[in-house]
Amino acid sequence: MKSALSTLLQQTADLRQAIRHKSHTGVTSGLVQGAMQGNVVILPADWANEFLLFCQKNPVSCPLIGVSEVGRYDMPELGHDIDMRHDIPEYYVYRDGVKVESRSDIEDIWQDDMVAFVLGCSFSFENALSQAGLTPRNVEEAVNVSMFETNIETVPAGRFFGNTVVTMRPYTPKDAIRAIQITTRFPKAHGAPLHFGSPQDIGISDLSKPDYGDAVTINDKEVPVFWACGVTPQVAIRNAKPPICITHAPGKMLVTDILDTALAVL
Amino acid sequence: MKSALSTLLQQTADLRQAIRHKSHTGVTSGLVQGAMQGNVVILPADWANEFLLFCQKNPVSCPLIGVSEVGRYDMPELGHDIDMRHDIPEYYVYRDGVKVESRSDIEDIWQDDMVAFVLGCSFSFENALSQAGLTPRNVEEAVNVSMFETNIETVPAGRFFGNTVVTMRPYTPKDAIRAIQITTRFPKAHGAPLHFGSPQDIGISDLSKPDYGDAVTINDKEVPVFWACGVTPQVAIRNAKPPICITHAPGKMLVTDILDTALAVL
Repeated sequence: MKSALSTLLQQTADLRQAIRHKSHTGVTSGLVQGAMQGNVVILPADWANEFLLFCQKNPVSCPLIGVSEVGRYDMPELGHDIDMRHDIPEYYVYRDGVKVESRSDIEDIWQDDMVAFVLGCSFSFENALSQAGLTPRNVEEAVNVSMFETNIETVPAGRFFGNTVVTMRPYTPKDAIRAIQITTRFPKAHGAPLHFGSPQDIGISDLSKPDYGDAVTINDKEVPVFWACGVTPQVAIRNAKPPICITHAPGKMLVTDILDTALAVL
Repeated sequence: MKSALSTLLQQTADLRQAIRHKSHTGVTSGLVQGAMQGNVVILPADWANEFLLFCQKNPVSCPLIGVSEVGRYDMPELGHDIDMRHDIPEYYVYRDGVKVESRSDIEDIWQDDMVAFVLGCSFSFENALSQAGLTPRNVEEAVNVSMFETNIETVPAGRFFGNTVVTMRPYTPKDAIRAIQITTRFPKAHGAPLHFGSPQDIGISDLSKPDYGDAVTINDKEVPVFWACGVTPQVAIRNAKPPICITHAPGKMLVTDILDTALAVL
């Protein structure tokens, strides 16, 4: 009989293969529950150190969980046989800070000087929320989480600067308090929320029009709760304007072989 | 040189003596910071078991930290030489559920069948909040904390039933999130809040008119945050109507020799 862990690892390997062969091209939210998913940023080596410093200065929005060797597209600390050129359902390509295309693999634009960064993702605590009876609305409604650009400034590092991107999940105050407790346990997945309540106070004008992802229903007596999001680097990349940068498309993440629960500090 | 702990124990002993000799008759909030303070309920033995069950069923509002032997007015597990008949600055006396008097000692109405209960108090986490830069407004303004009766029902036990009393402290959402994390560590001092935001949602009509204690300033962009309060039993006592019951007056607590930090679970 196979262990639960070996079953999970088979599922993550299968999903990465499906992504690699382009049979899965959609969002990864809710897939292989229990396996950590990550945000992806790929930069040339001469921009990588500045980005590493940006992550170090902004650990809540940019919690680093993996960095590749220069020119290497594997990521052995995060999973068996990962190929960073193929294993994300959709890549965004930025040139000089402008998103110029979206593509399903990056094999033909991979460079020998590239460094791949993987950042923790709030999907890692969604499973813990669900197990506590606090299933996020985006999971209930089977859509991508709502993401918004805010007026919360990151700490700049070299040429990287910009405001923080957040995910939003609505809860009643009572459930929000519990959600704060649960997500506090996951600092490498953005941890506790940055804000709740008034969207205007953090520069969001309309919750029904997310900058990325999908809008979700907000019920009477619920308040929006906002967590830092690993799409934050994409704002900083638009500002820093590196000649090339490749990221995941919001909600279409790298699926790793690491357990979400391995991120929990308690 | 005296240790910090022995200095603290001298301060708690001195304060209890000052209270015993009626030279301190006011609130105890903010006094001997670091020493745990407790809510007090004194009942005849034939009502005590039902009240014990009420506390067991409502551990957030009624976190028991001490119960005396029948007829004993000392409380050795909470402090040296405590005399429950004298060591609270102001007592309320309820007869048949009606508050009939307030007095500074209860020596002449003490009964040989009485049992004293001591319940944790949110003052125990106020020190931790202050140390985190989140000094409660009532401490800043040197007033008693605001307390309100809510529509949040307790779990009834025998003849004891009624709604929950809460304390209120205003914070910005960002600080409220941190305050939730900090107070979660103190389950025996009511732990995390029950609610934040709309007072109406928990049956409070006017934050400027607390049912007990004092009103505090609520600044722009702050939200009220509500924690369960050890005055909750006084509502249940009014409903249960025991022939006699003696409590502390809200904000005028038993000062113990136990460290607040001893209540922290993490």
